[in-house]
Amino acid sequence: MAISRLPSAGFSITIRVSVTADASAIGRLTTSVGSSGAIVTALDVVDSDHTSVTVDLTCDTADSGHADQVVAALRELDGVNVRKVSDRTFLLHLGGKIEVTPKVALRNRDELSRAYTPGVARVCLAIAENPADARRLTIKRNAVAVVTDGSAVLGLGNIGPAAALPVMEGKAALFKRFGGVDAWPVVLDTQDTEEIISIVRAIAPAYGGINLEDIAAPRCFEIEARLRDLLDVPVFHDDQHGTAIVVLAALTNALRVVNKRLADVRVVVSGAGAAGTAIMKLLLRQGVGDIIASDRYGALHRGQADLNPAWQWLADNTNRDNYSGDLAGALRDADVFIGVSAPNLLTGDDIATMAKDAIVFALANPDPEVDPREARKHAAVVATGRSDQPNQINNVLAFPGVFRGMLDAHAEEFTDEMALAAARAIADVVGEERVNPTVIVPSVFDSRVAPAVAAAVRTAAQTPAPPPAADPGPADLPQIAAQTSANNPPLPH
Amino acid sequence: MAISRLPSAGFSITIRVSVTADASAIGRLTTSVGSSGAIVTALDVVDSDHTSVTVDLTCDTADSGHADQVVAALRELDGVNVRKVSDRTFLLHLGGKIEVTPKVALRNRDELSRAYTPGVARVCLAIAENPADARRLTIKRNAVAVVTDGSAVLGLGNIGPAAALPVMEGKAALFKRFGGVDAWPVVLDTQDTEEIISIVRAIAPAYGGINLEDIAAPRCFEIEARLRDLLDVPVFHDDQHGTAIVVLAALTNALRVVNKRLADVRVVVSGAGAAGTAIMKLLLRQGVGDIIASDRYGALHRGQADLNPAWQWLADNTNRDNYSGDLAGALRDADVFIGVSAPNLLTGDDIATMAKDAIVFALANPDPEVDPREARKHAAVVATGRSDQPNQINNVLAFPGVFRGMLDAHAEEFTDEMALAAARAIADVVGEERVNPTVIVPSVFDSRVAPAVAAAVRTAAQTPAPPPAADPGPADLPQIAAQTSANNPPLPH
Repeated sequence: MAISRLPSAGFSITIRVSVTADASAIGRLTTSVGSSGAIVTALDVVDSDHTSVTVDLTCDTADSGHADQVVAALRELDGVNVRKVSDRTFLLHLGGKIEVTPKVALRNRDELSRAYTPGVARVCLAIAENPADARRLTIKRNAVAVVTDGSAVLGLGNIGPAAALPVMEGKAALFKRFGGVDAWPVVLDTQDTEEIISIVRAIAPAYGGINLEDIAAPRCFEIEARLRDLLDVPVFHDDQHGTAIVVLAALTNALRVVNKRLADVRVVVSGAGAAGTAIMKLLLRQGVGDIIASDRYGALHRGQADLNPAWQWLADNTNRDNYSGDLAGALRDADVFIGVSAPNLLTGDDIATMAKDAIVFALANPDPEVDPREARKHAAVVATGRSDQPNQINNVLAFPGVFRGMLDAHAEEFTDEMALAAARAIADVVGEERVNPTVIVPSVFDSRVAPAVAAAVRTAAQTPAPPPAADPGPADLPQIAAQTSANNPPLPH
Repeated sequence: MAISRLPSAGFSITIRVSVTADASAIGRLTTSVGSSGAIVTALDVVDSDHTSVTVDLTCDTADSGHADQVVAALRELDGVNVRKVSDRTFLLHLGGKIEVTPKVALRNRDELSRAYTPGVARVCLAIAENPADARRLTIKRNAVAVVTDGSAVLGLGNIGPAAALPVMEGKAALFKRFGGVDAWPVVLDTQDTEEIISIVRAIAPAYGGINLEDIAAPRCFEIEARLRDLLDVPVFHDDQHGTAIVVLAALTNALRVVNKRLADVRVVVSGAGAAGTAIMKLLLRQGVGDIIASDRYGALHRGQADLNPAWQWLADNTNRDNYSGDLAGALRDADVFIGVSAPNLLTGDDIATMAKDAIVFALANPDPEVDPREARKHAAVVATGRSDQPNQINNVLAFPGVFRGMLDAHAEEFTDEMALAAARAIADVVGEERVNPTVIVPSVFDSRVAPAVAAAVRTAAQTPAPPPAADPGPADLPQIAAQTSANNPPLPH
């Protein structure tokens, strides 16, 4: 699909090239690059003499193959000598994207003796006497583990722990940039559910929260549920809960645009993996009218044999009219489509069969379930996961603020109330008066988002839970518990 | 012992106190603090009016009990009102001592798309195709795990993982301050040997080295040996190898002072735990004349029943004359005493029985095996682990440079050759011409140390190993292997 081939900064290259020094030399270079479909973003002269000039030409390309074509076209020009091609993305990642920095000065003996031996011994003893002090006197105050087994990384699949590390480092960088959270990658060379659980349990003392990331379904559900029982810090699976929070925020504002109520709409969700399941549970929790879950075999419905427990739960708790056909059929007269599945499952014609003022969230990356340009011809609001289209559904709107709030509240669990509050906070940053079909979520660079989410989560952490009757889900929905007070006890002496 | 009760910055407190505003008011405060045996290090006026003045008085005390006495004495003064006592060490540790900082800017969409999706996907795929690229394109290039189970923390014993965290954070801060290494605490809520091994194996993909810390003997030996077999990054137990390196460096220079040769001396080591065992193995490797190992039951010798494997090895490979008496008897006519055991085992009279120009390293902390002031009456060179005495044997002289060198060489193992080279480098920073009885090791703040150690380790990593015949030790001595080249392969495209 052409939409995925637009040049982007993620595929930016810098080409060092020498040309004969005539008046049109540089022009011929930039023309060639433009004709190849790339976008020149910078041109720097690095050397010149009477007969030639050497420049660094930086351009965005669509992908690695396209970058090769751009360079090959330059090589074919008369009087042009391509000397070196640097990939700016690889240069950025060299040596890793995060570092560990001391917060204490260690300039002299006095500072050393307070931060390390002998002074540190007293701090150790204080924590040994009162383990809760670890939340005040150590990195546990502000540290989150970003845990993966490398089994479901981005859209790349099961690439393993080492290859997953660049993503986890990026995530850690985002945690600090947007939430002030100290996140550290924990990439595990095991994909055994029991081993992952026991490792995360064992490493947990250093962390005030656990962010599970890119772990394949259905293993991720069991790991999350078991760790929630075992640990006294919040466990959050971003692929599930981060996505669900941002989708609910976006849907809240999209419904404002079309003037429909959540309780009245029928939602079709394509994809019943980690993200889809969490989205559906949160929408049910918020009181959506009806949901149909569709996976590669069609709509999940009661009466199917051999469903895994997660799918059985969905079959039992969604699909009010027990529809049993395919995705296109489910879509007919539906108000909302949410895709977290695979590229190009639908056409504009399928979207045309939806109810008036349809809402389409086609979130498969990089190629959505339906071309957003086609969808926009028939739907009132369209969102994708792409940064080059309006209404980008991006988890970075949620996770930094959610963890900021949980750490500040000394929360022991992540709860549904926090998720609902975070979604509301994100939606409200746009605000009723600014909402329109192309602005249903704030920009990821909107500095109001993370503080608003953090404040909402802190409040939710300190609010007593409503009676469990309000909970539509099964036992494995996040439980709501009284939170510890955020007040710090006095310093031990 | 009085020596451990000297005031130090590790026990520094700040007392906020109001006094009547007469000419001698401040003088009475400082006189009281001085009379209590504390040392005033700062005095700041925070408020005053016509009748009273409020000051923050900062002073070093000897320990918590002493701090209480200092404050109690102030309270007894007429016209004095103690308002608040802050412990400067605790204030320093609030919220932890290290943080995670992005090395990449994330100011706009282009930067985000290179550091995270979609650009990061290409970096992931490059590593999936060539796993060795993780050493160039991720934090593995510069990251070290500081791993403990909290079972033998400082002199505090088995205080567990949460209480061990302040030490591991301090260690991480030292790693960055002195070696530019990104170290991260891994504090494990398990003391099961097999579980520790499998956890460290599983988390290893993110790290270019593993630093084991404060794990009790003999468990530490098996954990280290097994992980060396399992992992392709260096495994270093600082309590063993860091201590051994600095002791060998100090002994090298101490022998220069007394003009004796390593091959000729008899060494008595008190303490056959992690540190003592590693010291003895390294001294044997370097060709020391004879060693007697003494633990709480006396000298380890051949013919003893029921020794654990580590002690049996020592009994078989030390004690040339098979001496079987107590520590004091072993010391008679010995050239060198090295204590890594317990306080106050020996008196000056015991030291007097040693050979002429005796060398005494009494390293138990905070109270040495023998009062260094008494030892100095009978020995030519005395060293301790204390920062308030000359010749401090401090591991920070070794571990930052050792890991800096191993990371830069992309070393896959820590070897005896690296340990010997590091010890030589530390000794040589002092230099033959500057060596004297009070300067056998450089200051921990000497900025030449870590680069010199790193360079020596890099060279050792790239030097082919000598024939194994030169190795005096058993199979569990660190094996020497050809190292990977430090040359970076070209960037993948």
